[in-house]
Formats: sequence, structure tokens, C-alpha cells
Amino acid sequence: MTRYKAIVSYDGSQYGGWQKQLNTNSIQEEIEKALKTMHKHQVEIVASGRTDAKVHAIAQVFHFDSSMEVKEGHWERALNSLLPKDIRIQKVERVSDEFHARFDAISKRYDFLITNDVLNPFLENYMAKEHHTLDVSYMKDCATVFLGTHDFTSFTSNKIDPRKPREKTITRLDVIEEENCIRLVFEGTGFLRYMVRMISQTLIEAGKHRLTKEDIKQMLEMKDKHACRYKAAPQGLYLVKVNYKGE
Amino acid sequence: MTRYKAIVSYDGSQYGGWQKQLNTNSIQEEIEKALKTMHKHQVEIVASGRTDAKVHAIAQVFHFDSSMEVKEGHWERALNSLLPKDIRIQKVERVSDEFHARFDAISKRYDFLITNDVLNPFLENYMAKEHHTLDVSYMKDCATVFLGTHDFTSFTSNKIDPRKPREKTITRLDVIEEENCIRLVFEGTGFLRYMVRMISQTLIEAGKHRLTKEDIKQMLEMKDKHACRYKAAPQGLYLVKVNYKGE
Repeated sequence: MTRYKAIVSYDGSQYGGWQKQLNTNSIQEEIEKALKTMHKHQVEIVASGRTDAKVHAIAQVFHFDSSMEVKEGHWERALNSLLPKDIRIQKVERVSDEFHARFDAISKRYDFLITNDVLNPFLENYMAKEHHTLDVSYMKDCATVFLGTHDFTSFTSNKIDPRKPREKTITRLDVIEEENCIRLVFEGTGFLRYMVRMISQTLIEAGKHRLTKEDIKQMLEMKDKHACRYKAAPQGLYLVKVNYKGE
Repeated sequence: MTRYKAIVSYDGSQYGGWQKQLNTNSIQEEIEKALKTMHKHQVEIVASGRTDAKVHAIAQVFHFDSSMEVKEGHWERALNSLLPKDIRIQKVERVSDEFHARFDAISKRYDFLITNDVLNPFLENYMAKEHHTLDVSYMKDCATVFLGTHDFTSFTSNKIDPRKPREKTITRLDVIEEENCIRLVFEGTGFLRYMVRMISQTLIEAGKHRLTKEDIKQMLEMKDKHACRYKAAPQGLYLVKVNYKGE
């Protein structure tokens, strides 16, 4: 058996999320189906983490084990020929048997995109739409509140397992004005469920002057799962990169 | 009764085309459904022309008649609140009772987008994908063959009504290299069914050096409905603008 690390991009618009589940289609299921067609038996894949329904990935990472003999560069072609076009394998490479896509990830980057171009139908599945003009420099200022290591209980699903650690470190949170959107860039050691979307919507509210920097500081310090009632639209969210030691 | 001219953008990915038809959803049907909800009776709309399944529009034009009292700027909001998000009304304005969206159109612009970024899942519904690197300067040279007035019988559906005129004038056919795609810009007095897609694929074949400029000239001169067997993917095509006299 050889372990492989794979990088996959997907347009999440038509999926119920990464993880296999009843009653909805998932990215994981599609990839496992393609691997099963190749192997004639079930091949389980393990991702760096889940993404929610309608969330996209530029470079999600997963690993799997196989004893199939496939030439360098042929895994991608074989899998892509079996996968739906909105899921594209970018790269498959042999790794050490100890490599683990989830446990070995040391940091991740997520981007969140917001557009004012509300009448543009082509952005519907790819950005969060916002009617208001946002005060970007105030959003930049408020973003600094989240930098560093914090208990992010206030900015995650209130259904999260209470035994899981809520302490995470955000190393970068940039608010960048681009031609047709505002891009929020998050980098950190890990992110709790809904954390990026909840922080994103909080910053959008600040950009509309409906929240102050002081309000946001208080929300974070409360460490209360009911403190933040904001959550941005999933279609604005992209898993951009997963970083591993020694890369 | 007042006549209105409307401009609509749509992401055609999920539709069987502009025109109402059995067994598939259409842009026309969605807009007429929204107008019916507002009026409590059927309101027919007339477009500048059809677009095929999966083809997009930046600015399709249609007209309709209504005796409803709706304030300036409120038609857009009312219709958009009833329409699916991939169809967005950009503008509705009162026009003379004689205005006709199809008969009064004096020219149109269509763009066709081609990308080499074949592993990008986000472009799947929005550009034609091409594995080969295309010789853009040769494509530019070949594009000149189509400029001017020609009988385009060789570059249209072979099922087209034989009584319809096949003579059209192309006033612009630019091949433009952009950051992530090649954009073909077509402007002309009118386009036959499949004409833009058939010319686009012909230029792509030339860009791969599978057709010469001389081959293309001959195809055009044959005026034979079987002369061209090329037709580019619908998802690369955008109706960009419809021009009317006096604008």
C-alpha cells in the first residue's frame, strides 16, 4: 500500500458540503465513487477538514491509500475523467505512510468574498452580496481584534462538541479592496465550524457601522456561544490553502 | 397600456435557453411567471432574439405591455424579488408603443470566452475549455475572413428555415488575449442560429493549426449547410449588447 496526498479544487455550489451524508450529495462521496470505479473496491479518503454546503475550495487536501500501479501524473487524469466537472483534481503525489491530511495540517488559508454588484447574476454562487457600501478602512481596523490567540467560543456553531478546544490562532486577517469585490483573507492554525463566516459577517456589520470595534472586542471576550448572531453566506467562502510542515 | 423595454442579465447554466418550451425551464418562462404574479394575468414578453441552452446574457432586451401603475425604478425591484437569483433585471423603462425588441434591433454584440485553465472548476459553466495553446495572432488573421457582408449558410444550423435570409454583416470580430482567457468579440447586424459558436470553433481550430485561412474562406464561399462541422460549447457564449436606433 502506498499513501497519496491529493489537492482538489471544487465549485461547491451544487453540493451539500465536503462530508458524506445521507440525503445530499457531497464532494467526498464523488471522489470516493471515482476511486472505487478505478479500484473495484471502496477507498476511503481523509481531508484536511470539512467544508460546508455551497462552500468552495481552491486547494483542499486529502489522503488515501492504494496498491494500484499508476504512473506519475496519471492519477489526476484518471480521476478527473470519472469526476463531475465541478470537482477537479489538481495533483496527486506519493507521501510517507505517516502523512495525515488532517492531523499534519499546521495552518490554513480561507478567503471570503463580498460584492456590491448585487444585480450581477454570475456572482450569485461565488460571492456574498451586500447592498451597502462598506467602510473598508474601519473593517481593517476591526479585523485586528481577531489577530492572535483567542478562545473563539463566541464565533462558532453553538452545536459544537463542548469537549473540543476552542482556542485558535489567527495569524493574518486582511481586508483587501479588489476590482469587483472585497476580499477577506484569513490565515491561522485552524478554524472552528462557522468561524470564518461568523467573523466575516461581523466585519461586514462593522463596515455598515452597525457594530463598533468595542462591540466586537466584547463579543470575543464573552466566550459565549450566543454572543454572535451573524453568519455570512456560504457561497462567499473559499478554502484556499492547507499548509503542512516541511513544505 | 404602456410599453416597457427591459434589460436583463442571466446566468444561463441552469436553463434550457431563452425560449419557453416543453420539458425544460427557460428564462422567458421565469420572467413571464414573475410578471403574472404581479399582474394576476399572463403578460407576454418579446426578446431581441433567443439564446440557446446554457448561453448567458449580460444585457438581453425584451419588451412587454402593462397597464399597472409602477413607479420609476420599482419595476426592477418588484421583478427581481420574484425571479430566481440567476436572472436579474437591470433596467425597465417606458418606451413608445411602436418599440419592438426584435424588429428594432439594429445590431448585437456577442462575446465568446475560451480558457486554457482546464483544471479550474469555477470556469466550467462560463468559458469553453481548450487544452491546446492557441495561436492567437493566426486566429486574428483568420477572423478577418468573416468581416463584412456574407451569406452565412455554411455557419448555421442545418435545420434552419430555408426561406429565411442568410445574409448578415459582421462589423467587428476581435480576438483579444485577456489574463485568464481569449475573448472573441462579435458585432454585427444579426446572427443566425449557432453562427457565433460555429465561427468560434472554426477560429479555435485555426488556432490549433488544424484549419488554414484558405480552408475557412472556402467553407464560407461554399454556402453549404454541411461545410462547417464545428460548434463551440454554449457555456462560452454571452449576449453582451443589443443596439437600437437613436440610442
